[in-house]
Amino acid sequence: MASVHSTDENFDNKDTDIRSMPSSRNQGQSDRYVHKVAVPPKQNLFKEFKNTVKETFFADDPLRSFKDQSKSRKFVLGVQAIFPILEWSRNYSFKNFRGDLIAGLTIASLCIPQDIGYSKLANLSPQYGLYSSFVPPLIYAFMGSSRDIAIGPVAVVSLLLGTLLQNEVDHTTHPVEYLRLSFTATFFAGITQATLGILRLGFLIDFLSHAAIVGFMAGAAITIALQQLKGFLGIHKFTKKTDIISVMHSVFDSAEHGWNWQTIVIGGVFLTFLLICKFIGKKNKKLFWVPAIAPLISVILSTFFVYITHADKKGVEIVRHIEKGINPSSLNKIYFSGDYLIKGFKIGVVAGVIALTEAIAIGRTFASMKDYQIDGNKEMVALGTMNVIGSMTSCYVTTGSFSRSAVNFMAGCQTAVSNIVMSAVVFLTLMFITPLFKYTPNAILAAIIISAVLNLIDVQAAILIWKIDKFDFVACMGAFFGVVFSSVEIGLLIAVSISFAKILLQVTRPRTATLGKIPRTTVYRNIQQYPDATKVPGILIVRVDSAIYFSNSNYVKERILRWLIDEEEHIKAADLPPIHFLIVEMSPVTDIDTSGIHALQELFRSLQKREIQLVLANPGPVVIDKLHASKFTTLIGDDRIFLTVADAVAACSPKFLEEV
Amino acid sequence: MASVHSTDENFDNKDTDIRSMPSSRNQGQSDRYVHKVAVPPKQNLFKEFKNTVKETFFADDPLRSFKDQSKSRKFVLGVQAIFPILEWSRNYSFKNFRGDLIAGLTIASLCIPQDIGYSKLANLSPQYGLYSSFVPPLIYAFMGSSRDIAIGPVAVVSLLLGTLLQNEVDHTTHPVEYLRLSFTATFFAGITQATLGILRLGFLIDFLSHAAIVGFMAGAAITIALQQLKGFLGIHKFTKKTDIISVMHSVFDSAEHGWNWQTIVIGGVFLTFLLICKFIGKKNKKLFWVPAIAPLISVILSTFFVYITHADKKGVEIVRHIEKGINPSSLNKIYFSGDYLIKGFKIGVVAGVIALTEAIAIGRTFASMKDYQIDGNKEMVALGTMNVIGSMTSCYVTTGSFSRSAVNFMAGCQTAVSNIVMSAVVFLTLMFITPLFKYTPNAILAAIIISAVLNLIDVQAAILIWKIDKFDFVACMGAFFGVVFSSVEIGLLIAVSISFAKILLQVTRPRTATLGKIPRTTVYRNIQQYPDATKVPGILIVRVDSAIYFSNSNYVKERILRWLIDEEEHIKAADLPPIHFLIVEMSPVTDIDTSGIHALQELFRSLQKREIQLVLANPGPVVIDKLHASKFTTLIGDDRIFLTVADAVAACSPKFLEEV
Repeated sequence: MASVHSTDENFDNKDTDIRSMPSSRNQGQSDRYVHKVAVPPKQNLFKEFKNTVKETFFADDPLRSFKDQSKSRKFVLGVQAIFPILEWSRNYSFKNFRGDLIAGLTIASLCIPQDIGYSKLANLSPQYGLYSSFVPPLIYAFMGSSRDIAIGPVAVVSLLLGTLLQNEVDHTTHPVEYLRLSFTATFFAGITQATLGILRLGFLIDFLSHAAIVGFMAGAAITIALQQLKGFLGIHKFTKKTDIISVMHSVFDSAEHGWNWQTIVIGGVFLTFLLICKFIGKKNKKLFWVPAIAPLISVILSTFFVYITHADKKGVEIVRHIEKGINPSSLNKIYFSGDYLIKGFKIGVVAGVIALTEAIAIGRTFASMKDYQIDGNKEMVALGTMNVIGSMTSCYVTTGSFSRSAVNFMAGCQTAVSNIVMSAVVFLTLMFITPLFKYTPNAILAAIIISAVLNLIDVQAAILIWKIDKFDFVACMGAFFGVVFSSVEIGLLIAVSISFAKILLQVTRPRTATLGKIPRTTVYRNIQQYPDATKVPGILIVRVDSAIYFSNSNYVKERILRWLIDEEEHIKAADLPPIHFLIVEMSPVTDIDTSGIHALQELFRSLQKREIQLVLANPGPVVIDKLHASKFTTLIGDDRIFLTVADAVAACSPKFLEEV
Repeated sequence: MASVHSTDENFDNKDTDIRSMPSSRNQGQSDRYVHKVAVPPKQNLFKEFKNTVKETFFADDPLRSFKDQSKSRKFVLGVQAIFPILEWSRNYSFKNFRGDLIAGLTIASLCIPQDIGYSKLANLSPQYGLYSSFVPPLIYAFMGSSRDIAIGPVAVVSLLLGTLLQNEVDHTTHPVEYLRLSFTATFFAGITQATLGILRLGFLIDFLSHAAIVGFMAGAAITIALQQLKGFLGIHKFTKKTDIISVMHSVFDSAEHGWNWQTIVIGGVFLTFLLICKFIGKKNKKLFWVPAIAPLISVILSTFFVYITHADKKGVEIVRHIEKGINPSSLNKIYFSGDYLIKGFKIGVVAGVIALTEAIAIGRTFASMKDYQIDGNKEMVALGTMNVIGSMTSCYVTTGSFSRSAVNFMAGCQTAVSNIVMSAVVFLTLMFITPLFKYTPNAILAAIIISAVLNLIDVQAAILIWKIDKFDFVACMGAFFGVVFSSVEIGLLIAVSISFAKILLQVTRPRTATLGKIPRTTVYRNIQQYPDATKVPGILIVRVDSAIYFSNSNYVKERILRWLIDEEEHIKAADLPPIHFLIVEMSPVTDIDTSGIHALQELFRSLQKREIQLVLANPGPVVIDKLHASKFTTLIGDDRIFLTVADAVAACSPKFLEEV
């Protein structure tokens, strides 16, 4: 290292600035020194392990507030952690309540018609949709930490659950088993969610990429909208498959006899009405309540219309019957043994994870808009508990709804009390109003669902994904076409597979770059990005842009050698001085494993045969530690490891700075 | 940067220097300027795609030599690429041949007894081991590019194949089906290998980490050695399971009646002899031939001994019969339809991949020792072709053998001709010598196998793995105990799962660090690693050590905010100036996707609420491109993105440099 300063006087000053840094030992002995790459203070094994576990599972440091507290205080904090309502309710004011009341009434008016429609997607009777908007929101209000989420059945999960359940039991021929299996699936969806939260494995849902979700949601929206053609056109014989080709076959095969013009007129008029309301709400944010109450108005108007015109006698399908009264117990209906247990478990896991993804995404979005923190793992426990209790009280899988949460937010909700208000309205509906839905035409429900799921198609996001990352776009489109042309499961599978392929590609083929010196600086940067950066004669500087692991160690070694071969060919052609030093800039190499060290050893040996010296710049704390442990530092020589590329270059080529 | 050299007195100037940076357009207007973070030249979509495909599948640029050649020359090069022998044989000299001859004879003497023993591991008659050392080495010699690998049956693959086949068909009750299934598996092993090579998916085998392989191999060695207790102790009734508990049960249950003392004496004496020879070879590298020919000598001596003492009449098990003559065709024995086709295919894929892993590891090791290049994908095609042809000529899965390749190397092999020599010796053995093996005691074969597989237990490597990477050690031990206490498949499954878990962990929880200024430099480094680095008042500098993808974007955002909270607490306690700027050092962030950009946007919004400015330092080419595409640069302001942390700090805190 000393060689660095034994160059000529001209640039000494500058040099001191940049390169001569004190090593802690001989500091003061000289004012010209160079910093060594420091080996971080040795951690013992237990501490190291503890840190890894902490960063993996407790990255958010959930026990922070428990530190240095008395035992009784810890207990109170613990109970508050499980039931956040105990914390925020103490500061709850009338002003808060006004906001929550208005928001709760608005989402209730939106959720009642949606619930009835969505339960059809899950092949369940309408009252189960309403049940699911009664109990789960109450539970969530006590345990959840999001202030804006609106809980209840949602379109995508209903469709997914319906498809998966229908694959196992037919709901028309075996309605009892179907219902029991749906509660079993809901139970295990809740167990899955709570378990992920308790084991602090919440990060697993991050493996579904944003792009894949955008595609999946849009595909599910199209599929759901297509399913509504049955109710919208009044078709009797309709396929049970969900792919676009089967559905279109059903639609056109029945075109001659099967369509009912009265149904189409009712559906068409009210769909137009809903879409106009939606448009108004979009144009003027203050009129958000227009699209929010439009569905309920449609239901009331159309029900009244059918009642007075007796349209149901002319082939307009109506709801006919919704069970009156609140949720009966369904604990004894859950399969706790036998073949259906396993089937219910599998369906529950899939539906639970998808429901979780949606809820967490909503929670995070609104939390960041209002700048409060959401603990993902705690949310999962809340959502899981809510679904487990739901499965015992005749509810099917519920989660946060995108559209209703947005309305909730815009209507000025303050806390989860808006969910309690909604729940109360649903309670009153179940107790007193359900008989009034008898004459509600199915076409209206179809129109409401179509209008609702259109929100899930986010063309802007898809365009942005295309602009930012082409690979993401492939994932997005893969999930979209998988859902539309095959089924929700296939779409989901494609989304997950592409997401994983992307991760694997990332770790297998990390980027590398050759660096050059940016004129009049000591900064070395990627030559491709900074075309005016100049190469240093006799030195090749390569940066490896990733941890070096078994999955990429061979590639990294071979890629570095290929940079060298390319460079040597270029040098031969241009008659430049031959390469004597290869500097590997290690700043981005955050970790290395045994395979990675093997690769470096092989690189060193290959270079030795070519009479090129291997020099490392700025290995990080973990890397330098492992290089020491494996004696690699001794192999290449401790004096071949520098703090910066500039140091390394200066040491390798004392004459270089003169020339430039 | 220019700022680096100017000193504190003219501060204003410096400031202009750093923040008002001319883009390359108006360069030259001033001699004091600061570089902007350059946006790399825009590539069109096709080119970008081509580059990605090239780096993923053609990272080694295999068509390099084809560039700018005439058509006929290209044809010649193409044929040479498939059959490298055509290339190197033209320079083949007598001196080369002398080396290859000696090496070939040495490995032949080693392989013959091993082949007979290994075929037992695969539950096949001894001649199939010999067949497999005749045809495949010949094919490899023409198509392979490694000069040192010794081809033939190997212990681990034989055991794996034997276990997997036995799971499907019992070799004692259905010997014909068993044999046919083994050829089917060999056929598909070859097809798998060749397909991976042709599709250039060779990198997939990199997903088995070195650590997992070390553990797996050691476990397999123990398992194989335990299996030999049957022959070594002369036990008749022996378990078909391979786990240590079942085997030990078999051994001790038969202790009273089942052991044969004559067998134990013969086995014990020769195992001692073999181990002493091994020790000699290890102590003196020149005597490498001692352990190499010891097995053959043991076979000869023990066979002669049994023949004259009639020990076989006293319960010493002997080989009895080896079919004479070279490989019969087995094309008509491969199942090309029915249930066994699928079973054979599955077994073939697993055995093929493991065989590939071993061969490629050997090829790479010796290539790097002699400094020549191995094209992994081409090797796979060669190995695959060899196994496909092997499956049609009564061979079972072959690959490169660790122990024989090492002997081959030490005996001075020059090219693949040593494999041809070995193959010729095996040919002669098959034609003339097999009857002489009649009286060879099984105990000798057991001793030879035990002595051979001991090489696979690499305690040194395991210790090194422990020292370097604890997580790797867990993978290593997981694979080891999986094999020893359960079965080879379970061990393999554990190895693969842990390897994948490691990759997933790596992409989910990237490292982050806070940076400080190293005294008297403008270099900013991890404060943990360089404890004398000082924090800049009012500024928090965080480095993110990974690409920001969907799998970690939320974590990265939350981790940065947590650094901020920690720092603010510390500042409060120490009464320091509050933070006004958060600089994110982006050098290691090699890529970002839509989720990543969302996370940055959320970070920006959170910071905005806290009145902290977000500043980026040194985003790479891909990242800056995407930040532009997503308009994130406009959101935070183009003037908030700097080339280096030093620039960013200087711009954020003009007074800072005065203070320090």
